[in-house]
Amino acid sequence: MSYTAPVKDMLFVMNELAGLAAVNALPGCEDATPETAEAILEENARFCSEVIAPLNHSADKAPSSWSDGKVTTSPGFKEAFRQFGEAGWQGVQHPVEFGGQGLPKLLATPCIEMLNSANLSFALCPLLTDGTIEALMTAGTQQQKETFIANFISGKWTGTMNLTEPQAGSDLALVRTRAVPEGDGTYKLFGTKIFITYGEHDMAENIVHLVLARTPNAPEGVKGISLFIVPKFLVNADGSLGARNDVHCVSIEHKLGIKASPTAVLQFGDHGGAIGTLVGEENRGLEYMFIMMNAARFAVGIQGLSVSERAYQKAVSYARDRIQSRDLAGSPGPVAIIHQPDVRRMLMSMRAQIEAARALSYVAAATSDAAHFSDDEATRKSNQAFYEYLVPIVKGWITEMSVDVTSTGVQVHGGMGFIEETGAAQHYRDARILPIYEGTTAIQANDLVGRKTVRDGGAVAKGIIAQVRQTVAELQGDAQLQPIAARLADAADALEQVVEYVVANVKSDIKAVFAGSVPYLKMAGVVLGGWQMARAAAIAAGKLKSGEGDGKFYEAKLATARFYAEQILPQALAYRTAVVDGGAAVMALAEEQF
Amino acid sequence: MSYTAPVKDMLFVMNELAGLAAVNALPGCEDATPETAEAILEENARFCSEVIAPLNHSADKAPSSWSDGKVTTSPGFKEAFRQFGEAGWQGVQHPVEFGGQGLPKLLATPCIEMLNSANLSFALCPLLTDGTIEALMTAGTQQQKETFIANFISGKWTGTMNLTEPQAGSDLALVRTRAVPEGDGTYKLFGTKIFITYGEHDMAENIVHLVLARTPNAPEGVKGISLFIVPKFLVNADGSLGARNDVHCVSIEHKLGIKASPTAVLQFGDHGGAIGTLVGEENRGLEYMFIMMNAARFAVGIQGLSVSERAYQKAVSYARDRIQSRDLAGSPGPVAIIHQPDVRRMLMSMRAQIEAARALSYVAAATSDAAHFSDDEATRKSNQAFYEYLVPIVKGWITEMSVDVTSTGVQVHGGMGFIEETGAAQHYRDARILPIYEGTTAIQANDLVGRKTVRDGGAVAKGIIAQVRQTVAELQGDAQLQPIAARLADAADALEQVVEYVVANVKSDIKAVFAGSVPYLKMAGVVLGGWQMARAAAIAAGKLKSGEGDGKFYEAKLATARFYAEQILPQALAYRTAVVDGGAAVMALAEEQF
Repeated sequence: MSYTAPVKDMLFVMNELAGLAAVNALPGCEDATPETAEAILEENARFCSEVIAPLNHSADKAPSSWSDGKVTTSPGFKEAFRQFGEAGWQGVQHPVEFGGQGLPKLLATPCIEMLNSANLSFALCPLLTDGTIEALMTAGTQQQKETFIANFISGKWTGTMNLTEPQAGSDLALVRTRAVPEGDGTYKLFGTKIFITYGEHDMAENIVHLVLARTPNAPEGVKGISLFIVPKFLVNADGSLGARNDVHCVSIEHKLGIKASPTAVLQFGDHGGAIGTLVGEENRGLEYMFIMMNAARFAVGIQGLSVSERAYQKAVSYARDRIQSRDLAGSPGPVAIIHQPDVRRMLMSMRAQIEAARALSYVAAATSDAAHFSDDEATRKSNQAFYEYLVPIVKGWITEMSVDVTSTGVQVHGGMGFIEETGAAQHYRDARILPIYEGTTAIQANDLVGRKTVRDGGAVAKGIIAQVRQTVAELQGDAQLQPIAARLADAADALEQVVEYVVANVKSDIKAVFAGSVPYLKMAGVVLGGWQMARAAAIAAGKLKSGEGDGKFYEAKLATARFYAEQILPQALAYRTAVVDGGAAVMALAEEQF
Repeated sequence: MSYTAPVKDMLFVMNELAGLAAVNALPGCEDATPETAEAILEENARFCSEVIAPLNHSADKAPSSWSDGKVTTSPGFKEAFRQFGEAGWQGVQHPVEFGGQGLPKLLATPCIEMLNSANLSFALCPLLTDGTIEALMTAGTQQQKETFIANFISGKWTGTMNLTEPQAGSDLALVRTRAVPEGDGTYKLFGTKIFITYGEHDMAENIVHLVLARTPNAPEGVKGISLFIVPKFLVNADGSLGARNDVHCVSIEHKLGIKASPTAVLQFGDHGGAIGTLVGEENRGLEYMFIMMNAARFAVGIQGLSVSERAYQKAVSYARDRIQSRDLAGSPGPVAIIHQPDVRRMLMSMRAQIEAARALSYVAAATSDAAHFSDDEATRKSNQAFYEYLVPIVKGWITEMSVDVTSTGVQVHGGMGFIEETGAAQHYRDARILPIYEGTTAIQANDLVGRKTVRDGGAVAKGIIAQVRQTVAELQGDAQLQPIAARLADAADALEQVVEYVVANVKSDIKAVFAGSVPYLKMAGVVLGGWQMARAAAIAAGKLKSGEGDGKFYEAKLATARFYAEQILPQALAYRTAVVDGGAAVMALAEEQF
């Protein structure tokens, strides 16, 4: 069950592809030197692999449990969370003024990757707290920030996001929870929220719920939703804990995976009303929640990367150990199955997609840093646009990929993969939530089509495609990079055709265009992941020529990029056909013909 | 949790694509008239949906359990199995002389599909018994047949296949179980077998194990393995049950899915030796087992179809009921999610692949019938070759597809899909074993490359591709079929290039060729499934023109075929690149570079 953080590949991606030096040069990022980055990654790697990773499989077998409104988390979680908070890991990317380390997202991202590889269920608690901090930093008052954020960062308290209700999942316009003003600045909340991750648990002194609700006479639909802070225990003026608030966990779900993470049904106001305070202005709740969701969506994309990496390590280890059948090229006796070509193909396909996902998501993190920290407005704006285009891709593509990669991980194990004791099946079960929560893949794809492609007439998308072609041009001269360049050029052309199709047809045939939204999203992931692998290949080739660094690492990077180009990138052409030619047939059947 | 057997599509495929009339005309198949077929399907549909399907989800929640060597199956299984045997469903395809109905495989296949859709875990018991009957019919003595087969067909006894040992999974050369001749015609067996489906249970009076073992001084490797009958209770000369044999279930596995199906660890000979009798000749056990495995592999392919169909029906039902978000083209309020284009795309992709899989597997069943029953040797031979080419594809492609289709089924349900109570997750868990047992996808792909493609220089494969092109030619004239014809033509070309690559390179670069074996297998499934959908489209178009039959059904068939051509078939081109260009990169890394 061990996990070894891939620090070498992380540092390669940070330094060579995502431009850590350039991030370090941004105002406010002076501490994020390459040396600090390496030290933090190594310390985080140690903590995650020694403290958190060993709890992963045991917690799956002994999931969090509910009794009489209380949730007991899996053995070891409470103590591990105490250590997590004490070591300062909750604060990596949060403001120094509240006890955080104020480091850029490019540095926080590998830490999030490691924590989630170590234990997806455990990592969800900090992930939701990150989102809560983000929302309060954006829309909270100074007093709200002071009351809550330092306690979040220290790990004393944790945060949750309360969006979903039984009738309101992807469609938040249907939210019904009510918030009635009390006249004293507080509100009383009444309603039921479901699917609340870490909505109740025993790891922190207080749990602070951010809740979407409607005030009386609020407009219908999404423009009448406000955001409230509803803590489990009310907070006194001096910051100490007061009375128990009227929010109660009435049950937790019995889930396919991430079983150690309690998914709560929360009942607000059954005993007179849950006391809450407004965040920002009334009726702007969804807007604030979107800020938090964008951060959370990116983090869920990283979860996809994380669980894939863990499944890959497990599969490699099994393939090295399991002796079965002779080598195809001849061997005196049976050999480890890692010698079998199809096992190799499976491992390479896991590895190639993981490396591409890591590269693309870290590059996205660096653009987010430039968008936040640059002192040049044009730089901020162009990076923000690039980042926003990538968020639904990082979330949608990587999480969908993680379902495939963890499935391949089971397959590498053969029959043993189907036995729960082996642990491979847990990753397969855990991964399945990732393309669903924080917005399904379809919701991400709607965002990619609507806000990120159609709204600017495909300008940002085409700007990125131009950068892909720039990489193609840089690779052309080198014979060993030529096969990668050729495949990437075809893929870039295909992506451009899809962008043009989407922009040209969205008005005349909206359903056909949206029927292609998920194929477009997956294709964009495949192509832009391939772009990063091509960039990595060019750098590796250069290092090999100059004899700099670890030759074995760069050879492996080159081979992996070549595999990606030949086995993954060609999918882009199939997606193009699906989007550009396939729209009509999707909607051809009447409802009753299914 | 309901299941409605897709009898209409089954009959369409049987009559129009697989040629039931031609099968009915074969000697010995006189009873398999279209009327009889319809009557049997409808009766089986009723039985499966009313008696077996309701036990599916409840049995997952209350799986079979082990205590002190005894296995108690899930509530309802024992009584349902009694009804199954009494109604004669075990005997559909087995000889009349032992109480079976002696019907062709084309007719048995939809019955197997329905039983597995109703309950994959339950259906495994009859599936293994089918294999046991097949093996005894092939290699058993008349006395062995008389002793066992009638009791199998009546449902009094059941059969198992004992191949795997802890060190011998895909590689049966490593089997160590010993069989020592007693001098009286019996043997004593000693050893451990794992992963024995229904190796112990409470649904039948006796359990008859077919066991692979080595006699003293047998040659090493696969040529020294013999096949033995080892019943749980010894059988007296008069057919009554005798003493308890020395084979004991020491545990059952805790599995990801098919939890109601007990997967036993069997210990042979711990108390003096388990008494067994030889089947056929010594050292030919693997050969007999392969006959049985070919039947079982085909049946497991059908399991993939079955679980996909069940998951599809569940997803359609949820998509019709779940109200969420407005229609993209505008609606006064929220609508059922089946109106959303991406939900449509998911449902169509499930449906299209299911219909293609049904068509291809039923066509394969019909060729198996022609191979068995035709009085013309050349016809038997050519059909046998066609069938044998298709078996690894039916097994490998459809089961891999079922993992995707059941995953899509979860996705359609959104967050509810991740909650076990909903039931969608069970199909996702259940399906995951299918690409593993009865030979992993890699084992199927090795068979496809080695025995089915290279051995005859690609002759059978090219013969099938020629038939695909014949279909393309037939579609060319019709404007509405033209888009399907064009995609199919490209796919056929790609498949031919792959076959030629495999044949040309297997000697010079065996590892590169086998690295492409699974992509080749999946591609062959995608293309040949698309071929059958194209044939279906042509027939549907003809019926619509003539105004014959159910217009809505034929319109849906046409639209589904079009969807398949545009969204699924283009994958073939990506697989071609993976096989033809991708071999080198697969093997590029050294073992320690992973």
